[in-house]
Amino acid sequence: MTSRAPVPRVPRRGRRAGGGDTRGTIVTAARVEFARVGYDAASLRSIARAAGVDPSLVHHYFDGKPDVFVAAMQLPVRPADLVAGVLAGPAEQVGVRLATAVLDVWEVPAARDAFLGLLRSAVSHEEAARMVREFMGREVFGRVAQRLQVPDPELRAGVAASQMIGLALMRFVIGFPPVARASKEQLVAIVAPTLQHYLVGEPSRDAPRGLDSSHGE
Amino acid sequence: MTSRAPVPRVPRRGRRAGGGDTRGTIVTAARVEFARVGYDAASLRSIARAAGVDPSLVHHYFDGKPDVFVAAMQLPVRPADLVAGVLAGPAEQVGVRLATAVLDVWEVPAARDAFLGLLRSAVSHEEAARMVREFMGREVFGRVAQRLQVPDPELRAGVAASQMIGLALMRFVIGFPPVARASKEQLVAIVAPTLQHYLVGEPSRDAPRGLDSSHGE
Repeated sequence: MTSRAPVPRVPRRGRRAGGGDTRGTIVTAARVEFARVGYDAASLRSIARAAGVDPSLVHHYFDGKPDVFVAAMQLPVRPADLVAGVLAGPAEQVGVRLATAVLDVWEVPAARDAFLGLLRSAVSHEEAARMVREFMGREVFGRVAQRLQVPDPELRAGVAASQMIGLALMRFVIGFPPVARASKEQLVAIVAPTLQHYLVGEPSRDAPRGLDSSHGE
Repeated sequence: MTSRAPVPRVPRRGRRAGGGDTRGTIVTAARVEFARVGYDAASLRSIARAAGVDPSLVHHYFDGKPDVFVAAMQLPVRPADLVAGVLAGPAEQVGVRLATAVLDVWEVPAARDAFLGLLRSAVSHEEAARMVREFMGREVFGRVAQRLQVPDPELRAGVAASQMIGLALMRFVIGFPPVARASKEQLVAIVAPTLQHYLVGEPSRDAPRGLDSSHGE
């Protein structure tokens, strides 16, 4: 599932006869509505109202609010699919699956552009930060946290996400050479035990030597 | 040293008599020069040339290129001081010191604004990303990596930094509630073992339970 192809963002049933680009109108209205009221307060009904269409049309084109958000933000993958893929399979490999899935998706140029667009907005505009925070909280971390049996599951899911967001930033945006040039396998080997520890609680495995100090281990 | 007061950005010896705001002229020219050629290619000489002053004046006002950069980017702390503080003291506490130092400095509004400004520039402009990448590589990660005795020290220093950048982003910019509301002590308890592991190679210590799955440990 980590090599899942990007979900194509095509209308489920094509344009309505005589309806013009109804789907496009809904997507544009949704983008404005999410930025205006945030992810949680937006509803398929309020998006339909903003688009000037009947709510049934929103249901016609989209599988629900997360799907409208994915289309509005032009995400070429559904975070819910990514999360489902990471959570499926043996628990002792969840760190490897998460690290691999995130690095894989950032390597797809369209996905990178979309995430980078969201990140740029979020660091510059509080309304964008709120939208990202609410969407991720509800559709990503919330789903992950439900499955965790560690103390403070939401906090640990958030910290695991922070490792992967920071790593993607260093590798693909700031481009710090040792991180940018490392193979995906090297990075997965370093961060997977961390993610595993955050999400499942198993201690990290690989133990290289130490800090150059008389206080060293 | 983690509670070190921000280093005041005052001229070392005040204005030159009759020189106008020479220091301010140098700082403005430096900002342009770093963005134009990057941190590595900029020199005190090229900055002096851009400012239209004698190189001796740059040496008069600043302790070297890192200091000019800190002034140009309006950083209220010198990363070198922060790194020195983190590296001093017992090796088995380096993760705790790094996590505490980064969370402390992001809590200072002026520091947060400065880092956020750099981050905004870096995610939007490649020349800013290069400047940040080169400065951090040379003045931060390079110094840390020299002291590490783990395999791939620069890579591991970069991954440790990615955890703290990502955590600061989630706590202070995106504001995901469980991470934003957690106490500093809670966050340090979660990420310090990770940083310790990246930098020193000791396995993480705290081991909560597991993932809710039939495959769970």
